[in-house]
Amino acid sequence: MMSEQSSEVQTILALIADWRDALEHRDVDRLLQNYDPNIIVFDCKPPHRLEGIAQVRKCWEECFPCLPEKFHAEHRDMEVKVNGNMAFAHGLFRFVALTDVEKFKDCFYWGRVTVCYEKVDGKWLSVHEHISMPFDPMTNKIISVDPK
Amino acid sequence: MMSEQSSEVQTILALIADWRDALEHRDVDRLLQNYDPNIIVFDCKPPHRLEGIAQVRKCWEECFPCLPEKFHAEHRDMEVKVNGNMAFAHGLFRFVALTDVEKFKDCFYWGRVTVCYEKVDGKWLSVHEHISMPFDPMTNKIISVDPK
Repeated sequence: MMSEQSSEVQTILALIADWRDALEHRDVDRLLQNYDPNIIVFDCKPPHRLEGIAQVRKCWEECFPCLPEKFHAEHRDMEVKVNGNMAFAHGLFRFVALTDVEKFKDCFYWGRVTVCYEKVDGKWLSVHEHISMPFDPMTNKIISVDPK
Repeated sequence: MMSEQSSEVQTILALIADWRDALEHRDVDRLLQNYDPNIIVFDCKPPHRLEGIAQVRKCWEECFPCLPEKFHAEHRDMEVKVNGNMAFAHGLFRFVALTDVEKFKDCFYWGRVTVCYEKVDGKWLSVHEHISMPFDPMTNKIISVDPK
């Protein structure tokens, strides 16, 4: 039998999988269904800080037209830690173009993502997201995180 | 009287202030005293992922000679959320050169930091850190997070 903690880890991994599926379907309502109304996002691009669901929604709505018609949203190396009513997850994320592959071939880098969750009235909500790419200090240019 | 939760927030803010002081004194033992042995750090520069205290120690020891002889470590807009035995903090961070000011004037950007904590045997430990700067998608160059 699964322990309570590992069952909560599975719940959060399922939330992340559902987020990915919502993103691939450009379903912004479903994408945001587990966001705390006051979420603070540190995005990888300007604006560097999004406060609250309305700003996150606007950001995704502006992002969708820039993405290929069809794409995969891919996570890997996700690790989840749960303790009581708080949890966090971290790992890697990238988009993979399924159409306009040539046009987008140098656009999508692996980035790092950290998500902090809080359980409110029995429901896990994202309260903070931090998405980024590291940079080369010699050039100040971002570099892709190549997974092992 | 302070609530238990706001008292824990104060404890974590004190840990952060002590970390800053240890950094300014290049005291790596003190800097790492509240790190979980298995901490995972997403650093802003390569290597993008540090696993465990030994790697974090090596990273700081290699970093110290590159810093000005005297500097301030500065946080701002730090927000802390505690729930039971887990917590997280996020905000902005930068170095400020106090010597060799001219040499370092374009080196230090405001970055974002997220730290996840777990209370183990009554002691708060950093279990995950994510440090980054956003980038301009037109140039792929990092940009400083200018606080309001």
